[in-house]
Amino acid sequence: MPIFTVLGAGAMGTALCKPWVEAGWEVHLWGTWLDDHLLDAVEAGRPHPRIKVPAAPGIKTFRSGQLAEALAGADVVDIAVTSEGLPKVTEMALEHIDGLRALCLTAKGFWTDPEGRIQLLPDAIRSIADSKGVSLPPLVAIGGPVKANECAAGEVTATTYASLDLSVAEALAREAATETYGIRPSDDEIGVELCAALKNVYAISLGIADGLGEATGVPRHNLKAAAFAQAVREMSLLVSAAGGKAETPYGLAGVGDLEVTGLSGRNKLYGVRLGKGETPDGALAEMNRLEQTVEGYPAAPLAVAFAHQFGADEQELPLLHTVARILRGGVDDVYSAVAAAVKPVKP
Amino acid sequence: MPIFTVLGAGAMGTALCKPWVEAGWEVHLWGTWLDDHLLDAVEAGRPHPRIKVPAAPGIKTFRSGQLAEALAGADVVDIAVTSEGLPKVTEMALEHIDGLRALCLTAKGFWTDPEGRIQLLPDAIRSIADSKGVSLPPLVAIGGPVKANECAAGEVTATTYASLDLSVAEALAREAATETYGIRPSDDEIGVELCAALKNVYAISLGIADGLGEATGVPRHNLKAAAFAQAVREMSLLVSAAGGKAETPYGLAGVGDLEVTGLSGRNKLYGVRLGKGETPDGALAEMNRLEQTVEGYPAAPLAVAFAHQFGADEQELPLLHTVARILRGGVDDVYSAVAAAVKPVKP
Repeated sequence: MPIFTVLGAGAMGTALCKPWVEAGWEVHLWGTWLDDHLLDAVEAGRPHPRIKVPAAPGIKTFRSGQLAEALAGADVVDIAVTSEGLPKVTEMALEHIDGLRALCLTAKGFWTDPEGRIQLLPDAIRSIADSKGVSLPPLVAIGGPVKANECAAGEVTATTYASLDLSVAEALAREAATETYGIRPSDDEIGVELCAALKNVYAISLGIADGLGEATGVPRHNLKAAAFAQAVREMSLLVSAAGGKAETPYGLAGVGDLEVTGLSGRNKLYGVRLGKGETPDGALAEMNRLEQTVEGYPAAPLAVAFAHQFGADEQELPLLHTVARILRGGVDDVYSAVAAAVKPVKP
Repeated sequence: MPIFTVLGAGAMGTALCKPWVEAGWEVHLWGTWLDDHLLDAVEAGRPHPRIKVPAAPGIKTFRSGQLAEALAGADVVDIAVTSEGLPKVTEMALEHIDGLRALCLTAKGFWTDPEGRIQLLPDAIRSIADSKGVSLPPLVAIGGPVKANECAAGEVTATTYASLDLSVAEALAREAATETYGIRPSDDEIGVELCAALKNVYAISLGIADGLGEATGVPRHNLKAAAFAQAVREMSLLVSAAGGKAETPYGLAGVGDLEVTGLSGRNKLYGVRLGKGETPDGALAEMNRLEQTVEGYPAAPLAVAFAHQFGADEQELPLLHTVARILRGGVDDVYSAVAAAVKPVKP
């Protein structure tokens, strides 16, 4: 039985165990030094605290000190820690990944390299491997509209696996798909990673439209739909500028993930607060108090800097820049600002 | 002052008067023989019964017997009647449209020509004009995410105007845009029209996902997002097969309009009923009792026939065919059926 090892016992890592177990893999779930209470629940068969669903039966758990054991004999590994935790966990894991077929990545976000350049996480992993003189197996970016709790509960889920070598993504798509977990293979690693990082920023604008509607009792559906279309337009433009495929944002990784993120999720809820008139800092403090991480908040300025590196300027990405400006506290009237960013300009 | 005449005093026709008045046009609103009670409200300054918002101040209203007067001197005309009413109103109007700069179309849907072919409405208009020996001005398809009540209330709205001659669409985009009404010009008449007709069918599948969630108390957001992405994929494929541009569904006309239709709207609400276990006929009867037209219901088999004309078969359009089959009463388990249609197949 081939072995699939997940690094990080948070919501997405634990959720991903479900289809892989059902697809016939031996699944190892390794928890970081921050995950002991999560593994306690998993091992006791209790619902995972973050997703309120028990982990898939049959998985083997490993504590932070057992990384070598978790990775021993692994065929495929997925890194499912936060983007902050990724460099350290990658460094630790690289010592134990001989003979790996593929290194998957559900961690998402931007990373600032030592020279101050903003990079996507696969490039962070490549930099770390280079600096340690380790050669990497093929990387596979996992993206698309996957709410972890639904995936863990075995609800129908469509996802995309992207690898520079399409045949690697296709092979995993054949071997990890189940009756309820469908995988679309792709060769656009940059597109899938960038959509995943950007969608949290754009989801804030969708939340703002919802919040404006809630505050006034008058829905702003036209605004939300215009923001949705503008977000997809800008994601396509930026993916293309960064060397990815312009069409990737039109599929599961973009349109699909933005839809699920705009239905619920913390970034959208943060936007709702802004739409209802809370200040960016006040709303963030309140979300933090509720232990709700708003990934789009730190991602917004990084996304702007990333776009700048590729020569995509403000005129082409008005909604991205507007959200970043709102988060910096530089906007008094969020309705007018978002409206101006999503309204087609006169030809 | 140039004259803009709207034919049909329903929700969308009345809503469209608002930006055109604000853009500086003299606006004529003509009501059909079914619209007298609507014009009564408009003329009295009361909220329009369908959109609960008063019509824009300053418009001139015309009763069904005053078509010639309504069209006298018009520079631009918009046909805003139902797809059923379109042939008759078009025939009547063609006698009075000398010197028109553009004939716009907010009416949407499929039309069956005398030979039994399914056509989009601009082709219906062309057929009618041909049969009467009348030469037409440039046609402009108006689409995108426009809820009539929000547009009529002056809420921010983004829309697309498509004409085979792009310069015609661009000129109107310059002359009809306002602070709150942004217009993206396009040259893809087929794409804009087809997206508008298809989105009502696909919105039913989005509603089904919502209804399944409501019925069980467990959200089906992964399913809804997968259906959304699949709908966009199929719309692109079908638009392309029909001679339109594959990318039109990725913009306001597709992604944007599907987003707004999936947020609310009658087709989505009908889908919610199906997801909660009502039968297609039972749910339709109840919607009819509530005077809620479900445009996607008659459109589904027409869309299937339209696709067939262009050689796009069931394998390429699984979600469209699944919705049509559900509406025919041919599906017992809607969850499994929609899931199978939106889950990527194994490569």
